[in-house]
Amino acid sequence: MSNATARAYPNIALVKYWGKRDETLMLPAAGSLSLTLDAFATTTTVELLDGASEDVFSLNGVAQSGDSLARVTKFLSLVRELAGSAQHAAVTSINEAPTGAGLASSASGFAALAVAAAAAYGLDLDRAALSRLARRGSGSAARSLVDGISVWHAGDGDETSFAEPVTAPEMSMIIVTVDARQKAISSRTAMRRTALTSPFYPAWVESTEQTLAAMLEACRDQDFSRIGRITEMHALRMHALIQSADPPIRYLLPTSVAIFDAVVALREAGIEAYSTADAGPNVAVISRPEDAQAVADALEQYGTVRIVGAGAGATLIPNPIDPSLEATA
Amino acid sequence: MSNATARAYPNIALVKYWGKRDETLMLPAAGSLSLTLDAFATTTTVELLDGASEDVFSLNGVAQSGDSLARVTKFLSLVRELAGSAQHAAVTSINEAPTGAGLASSASGFAALAVAAAAAYGLDLDRAALSRLARRGSGSAARSLVDGISVWHAGDGDETSFAEPVTAPEMSMIIVTVDARQKAISSRTAMRRTALTSPFYPAWVESTEQTLAAMLEACRDQDFSRIGRITEMHALRMHALIQSADPPIRYLLPTSVAIFDAVVALREAGIEAYSTADAGPNVAVISRPEDAQAVADALEQYGTVRIVGAGAGATLIPNPIDPSLEATA
Repeated sequence: MSNATARAYPNIALVKYWGKRDETLMLPAAGSLSLTLDAFATTTTVELLDGASEDVFSLNGVAQSGDSLARVTKFLSLVRELAGSAQHAAVTSINEAPTGAGLASSASGFAALAVAAAAAYGLDLDRAALSRLARRGSGSAARSLVDGISVWHAGDGDETSFAEPVTAPEMSMIIVTVDARQKAISSRTAMRRTALTSPFYPAWVESTEQTLAAMLEACRDQDFSRIGRITEMHALRMHALIQSADPPIRYLLPTSVAIFDAVVALREAGIEAYSTADAGPNVAVISRPEDAQAVADALEQYGTVRIVGAGAGATLIPNPIDPSLEATA
Repeated sequence: MSNATARAYPNIALVKYWGKRDETLMLPAAGSLSLTLDAFATTTTVELLDGASEDVFSLNGVAQSGDSLARVTKFLSLVRELAGSAQHAAVTSINEAPTGAGLASSASGFAALAVAAAAAYGLDLDRAALSRLARRGSGSAARSLVDGISVWHAGDGDETSFAEPVTAPEMSMIIVTVDARQKAISSRTAMRRTALTSPFYPAWVESTEQTLAAMLEACRDQDFSRIGRITEMHALRMHALIQSADPPIRYLLPTSVAIFDAVVALREAGIEAYSTADAGPNVAVISRPEDAQAVADALEQYGTVRIVGAGAGATLIPNPIDPSLEATA
């Protein structure tokens, strides 16, 4: 195959990932757990080029250069190494989420790229191997290979650090976008500063493994309330960690805090909902599916609200560019 | 003397105190540094009673009972033990700050009570001993014995844990009261939960001693910018610590976060100001005296703004209840 298209969705962590043990292999300092969404897809086509001397990358119709292209080229080089190929590629990607606003577009982006590139370069990889490959592009992309709730094992090396499915009760996620602008400090930069300057960082790493064990237990017990409490606690703890860096980094805006407060008030009013937020100002709220509309109604005053559910892990789809290739996908 | 009146002011920590090493002796887990204010005074009269079987305590004209009275009685019992007295007392206190809203009214309250009670019971204590005594009522009261900037040494026991003056550049503090209601969770309760449940607590204690050393150096160097950076960093770190408790505790309201953001914007516009916040939603901003009015003007949209400066440590004043006793004060 010299041409393949994949679609992947972002994921929102319920047990957060913050900090790397190994920046080259993209090994996380601790394990994490997330929900792959059924919205904000990234669709990516990788087409091998004959005789080209470099890769090209187009995102949402705009030809990329600089860091954005360099990250894709670096990833493709890894795929080429695995495939024993020297051929360059054209990567064409459509991302339906606002880039850089904390909706984990790099997760869906590298998950889709991993699946499409592996197919285009003829690699025969199972889900765990694709998850490991996606991880090399963006750590949390490892989790977007999995349907629904996924645990990403910290592992003890490249071979053991991948995501796999976890059985958990069905839930909805209400995403409140309060600011779709690009965030001021990238997760990558902020993770580095946190690890270097926060006195809390070692305890964060150690305690996150304990939090993950508690969360896996709550999932096994189908205990939504406990899943929710752990989710909100761990999100606030991650933002606390980030805020403890020197100089401090604050991702939550006043409106973000107002949403956390509103969700506490919802619980006091008998609607069980719990907040989380990635490294940005947007807030994602989980609830039982039957409560999702009530939560959305209560939060629409704070931003653009969208109810999402559990989505599919990254997978090949018929190539939209050239219908004649659909059969090979 | 059987009757004495003292006045004390709250203090706002620039290096924060959060957590006790010893709850009985009220020894802090780490040292701290604060500014004693020249506003929001507490004025307290202690009058020894002949033949009374218990203490009475009136605050802002309201007779106190329950926990409020119990805390005063417990403190007076300590003073009686030191003085070898069994006599009960009437404590009459006027507090000009909104109680329980993070303006450290317990600090001014116990500083004034310590000075007035020591005098009424005839104890001859120097400033360090009065600071140690006040500490037993409310930890941070130890600092309100000192004029202006004060360091409260963690010490290694009752004898060595007291506050003393620090030379520092002159500064103003702009206090923005965003919510004068009683806070939901007292500092005392929140400190306990933090120490018991936050994985960050040991690192907080250890790193605060390092932060204090850096702050003392900045004061010695008369380096206002560095004092400010440390102040804001450490305040955010304390709130991060508190937020990392399980269940999480959040004292900052959306408006509090908006003020922190506005102060960042002031700095970007060339006005050097730095935020801090005690265990409540109000924000205190430090600036050079010549910038205070500009800071106040920029922040008045967020709450009630008041510019304060360095105030006096707790001291005896002429007794307002009985003018004939003024000479003995």
